[in-house]
Amino acid sequence: MTQPTAIFNLFFFNPQGDYRFSWRHPQSPGREIFTLKFYATLARRAEEAVMDNIFIADHVAVWDTVPSGIPHYANLRLEPITLLAALAAVTDHIGLMATASTSYNEPYNLARYFASLDFLSEGRASWNVVTSWLPEEAANYGRETLPAHGERYERAAEFIDVVRKLWDSWEEEAVLLDKQSGDFADPQRVHPLHHQGKFFKVRGPLNLPRPPQGHPVIVQAGSSEAGKQLAASQADMHFVFMSDIAKGIAYRADMNRRLRALGRDPGYFKILGGVLPVVVNSAAEKAERQALVTSLMNDQMALDLLGTYLQMDLSGTDPHAPLPPLPEEDHFDGIRTALQIIRGYDAGLTVLELGRLLLQSSDSWLVIGTAEEVAETLIAAFSAGAVDGYNLMFPFLPLDFDNFVAQVAPLLKARGVMKTAYQPGTLRQKLGLPAR
Amino acid sequence: MTQPTAIFNLFFFNPQGDYRFSWRHPQSPGREIFTLKFYATLARRAEEAVMDNIFIADHVAVWDTVPSGIPHYANLRLEPITLLAALAAVTDHIGLMATASTSYNEPYNLARYFASLDFLSEGRASWNVVTSWLPEEAANYGRETLPAHGERYERAAEFIDVVRKLWDSWEEEAVLLDKQSGDFADPQRVHPLHHQGKFFKVRGPLNLPRPPQGHPVIVQAGSSEAGKQLAASQADMHFVFMSDIAKGIAYRADMNRRLRALGRDPGYFKILGGVLPVVVNSAAEKAERQALVTSLMNDQMALDLLGTYLQMDLSGTDPHAPLPPLPEEDHFDGIRTALQIIRGYDAGLTVLELGRLLLQSSDSWLVIGTAEEVAETLIAAFSAGAVDGYNLMFPFLPLDFDNFVAQVAPLLKARGVMKTAYQPGTLRQKLGLPAR
Repeated sequence: MTQPTAIFNLFFFNPQGDYRFSWRHPQSPGREIFTLKFYATLARRAEEAVMDNIFIADHVAVWDTVPSGIPHYANLRLEPITLLAALAAVTDHIGLMATASTSYNEPYNLARYFASLDFLSEGRASWNVVTSWLPEEAANYGRETLPAHGERYERAAEFIDVVRKLWDSWEEEAVLLDKQSGDFADPQRVHPLHHQGKFFKVRGPLNLPRPPQGHPVIVQAGSSEAGKQLAASQADMHFVFMSDIAKGIAYRADMNRRLRALGRDPGYFKILGGVLPVVVNSAAEKAERQALVTSLMNDQMALDLLGTYLQMDLSGTDPHAPLPPLPEEDHFDGIRTALQIIRGYDAGLTVLELGRLLLQSSDSWLVIGTAEEVAETLIAAFSAGAVDGYNLMFPFLPLDFDNFVAQVAPLLKARGVMKTAYQPGTLRQKLGLPAR
Repeated sequence: MTQPTAIFNLFFFNPQGDYRFSWRHPQSPGREIFTLKFYATLARRAEEAVMDNIFIADHVAVWDTVPSGIPHYANLRLEPITLLAALAAVTDHIGLMATASTSYNEPYNLARYFASLDFLSEGRASWNVVTSWLPEEAANYGRETLPAHGERYERAAEFIDVVRKLWDSWEEEAVLLDKQSGDFADPQRVHPLHHQGKFFKVRGPLNLPRPPQGHPVIVQAGSSEAGKQLAASQADMHFVFMSDIAKGIAYRADMNRRLRALGRDPGYFKILGGVLPVVVNSAAEKAERQALVTSLMNDQMALDLLGTYLQMDLSGTDPHAPLPPLPEEDHFDGIRTALQIIRGYDAGLTVLELGRLLLQSSDSWLVIGTAEEVAETLIAAFSAGAVDGYNLMFPFLPLDFDNFVAQVAPLLKARGVMKTAYQPGTLRQKLGLPAR
């Protein structure tokens, strides 16, 4: 039996890189972020490097209620499902992970989009389930305020359940297409849902046969209590914010306990850590990089990001004073994971220092060093069992991605930690996930 | 000035052709209808033939409450927006028209999908607006019954209005991307909607810049009073069911009156007739074709189609008796256009005869004859000003499409009625539509 390799995703939210100011990098793309060509080039390079997935994060709004929003970072970008459908046509192997919200969609629509994407890509579709936490998003869908955290997760659980039932509504053998007899399908093998729950009433069946993967791969991020339970009950892949090996191992132990309690095999639950891999080949290069990052940053954006993550109005707060008391997690409707991370920061830092830290790390793990150092860090956390792989959140695109592919990937491959060729089969099969 | 050419769309709903029994044709595709390759081949051939658009109709349900539904015609197919996004990647010129329902979507989502498709295709996106009339569709979205006809159209009007405002929410010059100054966008040129109407409350702005076309091309079908008013106020292109030139001219005169009353130039409103073009090169071939069609048809399907179009339960009706009294149009929640067409049929026909007629014509204009006859018929209605072009609804795919491209298209091109090369520019520009 061969040693399993780690999973590597090319992750992005901002097309210019993971920082909210990445668009200012001298080599960052300009208006080409609104063309298919930009993404097709990235996707083909990711496939040449034998990466596992393209993972596209999403919001359904512009982050514009903060002062820096539109002036300095409007995060305009293509919509993930349509973008990945187009990329399905120009790639052959890589998984296509699209973020879509359970708070602002209908299950029948999403079940169709992902089933259709699964057919178009011959079994490479994946859905990153989010519940959406920005008040700006709620306002685009008729709501005065963000739905409460618990309600969003309750709706998400029912939503996924309905989507799975829609994917199951046609048995594998239901479609006959018998031209001679005129039998299109076997009604005994088609199952309307007649679902009636707290949030949804859906009759079914879906108007597509069972997708090539059965169920497209389900991804979930978010490490609040509700998030972890949703992941344990529904997700194939779980995206976490990890900053050291010991915490990663403890996190996995907690998830394994939850999975076993639900009768699931933890071996079939893939945990991916978010990392920002940056290759610098000398101390001088590292210092130069930090100076560039500092020059591109914007203090207002740092304060806005911190305030948004905490869902606190910091406009009256002295940026050079320590943070005011933080919200209690139990009554917090934002990203509880972000709240936990901010709690973990040095309490002696000022508001602005914290904001700048957050802006640079994107609340994730900045792994900066020589190619060898980056590779060793990634290998260590994988080998220790802290994670099954990584969401690679490159700070600057395509620069940091190109450096990773050229310098780090060969080292990972030489050590047997990264695939050197794609296996045949669907994404689910390639990732070693069970049929579902 | 060159003579304008007619518009030709490759239309489809069933991937195997326009008849509900097209899938039974000996040369029809089988499970390849669930692969991108099947559509990519059709799309590339349509582009080689210099056709204007690929137009994909849609329902958001399986037509399964009738006895023939799942057993004989389940109309499984890929979802149009994802399919056309994938086709954007493998075509360069042809317009991409996707059907999407205003009854079962959120305006913010559709505005994004179509804006994204417009960017991915470099200005070739088009939205065919439907209000959805099948009770099976309503049941997939939490409704006990179909929303009333008037309410559906009222919602559609507000829906399109919100989508247009979202497309307008970023002025052309709003995105600055000034790396030096750090100015991403000019807040003065970004316009949240703060829309609050009867059906929707949407804050905006959209999280994409103004699409390449400004507004993707809006298409509307449906010739009820409400449908015609919606088309006159909102559509760039109107898809009609036409069966002779005189009726087409009268229809256009009525639409022109409505357009002028709304201050619109009728020259910028394109009327497309739905036709089923079938090339048969001899009387023997025609008889053979009719015999094949008759052998593939199914009487239950004919009765089910008639009952569904009339929204009447015909199960207790003698199929060999004349039709019972038809519903009044004013209180009819189904397709009022279909009701009008059925009213226009010979009243002496039996229920089954009517159903079989409907099943063969797909309630549209069957133009069968030699290539010369088909070309002459299409040229005549266009030259008379009855239509600006055609939705070509091929009964059998790819057979009838291939025959049309090989035999009819060259005649149309020789007569200057069909384009011989694509013009540069967006779809809106290619179709001679004004900036919007």
